[in-house]
Amino acid sequence: MRDVAVIGVGETEFGELWDRSFRDLGIEAGLKAIQDAKITTSDIDAVYVGNMSAGKFIDQEHVSALVADYAGLADLHLPTVRVEGGGACGGIALLQGRMAIASGMYDLVVVGGAEKMTDVGDVHAAEILSSTADQEWESVFGATFAGLYAMMARRHMHDYGTTRAQMAAVAVKNHKNGALNPVAQFRREVTLETVLQSPIVADPLGLFDCAPLSDGAAAVVLCAAEKARKFTDTPILVRGSGQASDFLALHDRRDLTTMDATVEAGRRAMKEAKCDPKDVQVAEVHDNFTITEILAIEDLRFFDKGKGGLATQEGLTSLNSKISVNTSGGLKARGQPVGATGVAQAVEIVKQLRGEAGKRQVVGATRGLTHTLGGTGATAVVHIFERGD
Amino acid sequence: MRDVAVIGVGETEFGELWDRSFRDLGIEAGLKAIQDAKITTSDIDAVYVGNMSAGKFIDQEHVSALVADYAGLADLHLPTVRVEGGGACGGIALLQGRMAIASGMYDLVVVGGAEKMTDVGDVHAAEILSSTADQEWESVFGATFAGLYAMMARRHMHDYGTTRAQMAAVAVKNHKNGALNPVAQFRREVTLETVLQSPIVADPLGLFDCAPLSDGAAAVVLCAAEKARKFTDTPILVRGSGQASDFLALHDRRDLTTMDATVEAGRRAMKEAKCDPKDVQVAEVHDNFTITEILAIEDLRFFDKGKGGLATQEGLTSLNSKISVNTSGGLKARGQPVGATGVAQAVEIVKQLRGEAGKRQVVGATRGLTHTLGGTGATAVVHIFERGD
Repeated sequence: MRDVAVIGVGETEFGELWDRSFRDLGIEAGLKAIQDAKITTSDIDAVYVGNMSAGKFIDQEHVSALVADYAGLADLHLPTVRVEGGGACGGIALLQGRMAIASGMYDLVVVGGAEKMTDVGDVHAAEILSSTADQEWESVFGATFAGLYAMMARRHMHDYGTTRAQMAAVAVKNHKNGALNPVAQFRREVTLETVLQSPIVADPLGLFDCAPLSDGAAAVVLCAAEKARKFTDTPILVRGSGQASDFLALHDRRDLTTMDATVEAGRRAMKEAKCDPKDVQVAEVHDNFTITEILAIEDLRFFDKGKGGLATQEGLTSLNSKISVNTSGGLKARGQPVGATGVAQAVEIVKQLRGEAGKRQVVGATRGLTHTLGGTGATAVVHIFERGD
Repeated sequence: MRDVAVIGVGETEFGELWDRSFRDLGIEAGLKAIQDAKITTSDIDAVYVGNMSAGKFIDQEHVSALVADYAGLADLHLPTVRVEGGGACGGIALLQGRMAIASGMYDLVVVGGAEKMTDVGDVHAAEILSSTADQEWESVFGATFAGLYAMMARRHMHDYGTTRAQMAAVAVKNHKNGALNPVAQFRREVTLETVLQSPIVADPLGLFDCAPLSDGAAAVVLCAAEKARKFTDTPILVRGSGQASDFLALHDRRDLTTMDATVEAGRRAMKEAKCDPKDVQVAEVHDNFTITEILAIEDLRFFDKGKGGLATQEGLTSLNSKISVNTSGGLKARGQPVGATGVAQAVEIVKQLRGEAGKRQVVGATRGLTHTLGGTGATAVVHIFERGD
């Protein structure tokens, strides 16, 4: 396969952005990435957009054509593709963009991710999120997204002795990182007590165990590696990618405390990248709930099964520790505009590997990983990035 | 690029299928394609699903994981991707599957397309279709999908003298073809008078100028060409693909009577396939309205601009004439489950090139084309297929 590199990144502020529409956000992130890559629009061969549910959030399908149009690209008649796989759509879009270049069909592709979640009409955003679980066998019976993840948390507590304080440590860490990220939705630290005393959303998950609803967008410019030096001195290579699926409904799974899709996606990505978990210094993992980050760092084999909570509590995932996890603040503090997530994770890893992460820089980072989930883990996608020099 | 072949096809009946759910339809088409390809599930590397709006039609996003799960593939943890680009999603999914194999990442991919449109809740299906136009600048002001296409029809009549009878000839032809297709939604012929006297939906388009709302699904199995002979004696090669976009809103376009996205997509596909329009014997083109087929056969350069209506009236697009267009019955008579369209078109072309199209067989067909549109033409995708022997 032809090697593919990231040569440009861009993202909007994340948050409740009442003054900006979906199209504003998509364009801002895309144009920032284009500027960062120092390309002109005529260099672009195709546009991919990760988006979960613009149809339901803003009544607009066909958002890939929309973003290209409003970014001023309509006259180029570029191929534009929207990719969806629940919350994993940004990570999947990145993989489609990578394969499209690897195939030789295109040389340079812009991959964006965007979601506008706070301006929703007559349906609650939580209902829309539930539509990525099994509507017929879960959501219809009242299972909310938080409720499903709460069951995973409770089982993890039962099987491995994980505590609410260990889960809360994820939130404390990610808020601490988010405070160092100028685009994060929550740029302030929280104490363990604040997290533990927050109102219960779905027992044992409290308000501060849950990522927020957010507006935001992110974009990366992908380029055939052999042409990347034309545009940048610091191409970041996509060294390995793995995607996997699982039973859509939680009750069909083998085990509530292991996401097999994450295990498989991680294994495939590391096999392709010819590396082990110990070779990764920085990782952006899916933390829509605090328990989700604990599952992820176990299932990606950064820590043994059942030890993720303890490892977090002991600071092994904090900035510049054993492995720096969610240096951006993660979904928890950077924010969770769903379609943007997988792409925003890639933006953060690229900044880390370029050495441009400012106050949250992981010293000596040479290899980074992104992990994005769809639904309650029915889709997982993992990418591994390395500096190209 | 590595060559890719279709080695299996499958489709459901199309129509108002009250006794079958989205998942039933997706599974039926997928399993038929798998059986036709004589593969086992362990041969499959990935699943792509073209779907326009399951989120709005059936409250279910993340349908690619759903279909893989309910088809019994969950234990294989396959990568699954939903692709959307308005009504072009099936054609785009096919292109993503092709590139994924061409890249070397996968060897064998199932590409499905599905939509369940007749069982919709508290919103009208026509509103959902409108969400692929520009919601903020068209739909919100009351422009329906039929209304937008009606403006194209009226302008075509004004500029080129196209008549309602010429548009009606599209419907008559496609119903005639549909009557020969065992899975078509409308398996009966209609007279010119019936079409012309049908109630007006959006002047000048009458009821019989409009494709129906439908349930249905289709699937193809794609395989690296060098491995295709292991499974079949009649691999059908995807020789060329082109995709293009345009301004999302109709009022921003250069010309209402030419779809630039179709022109570009067709040009790109023919360039890659190294062929001209005259080399194509059979084509499935997007005919959500009768005017759309006329625009398509002009923009694909089968006929000169402005001559598409006359050509249809003169029988030049009928079965076994100059070029056989929409032998399946097209969206008009086979039916229009939106996400299925691009894949169902490929199923028809593969059957034609294999010589398995029964009473609607195009004699001596060696090269076929599919053309699928999203929105009012903001996305177009064209594929060109050839027999592999």
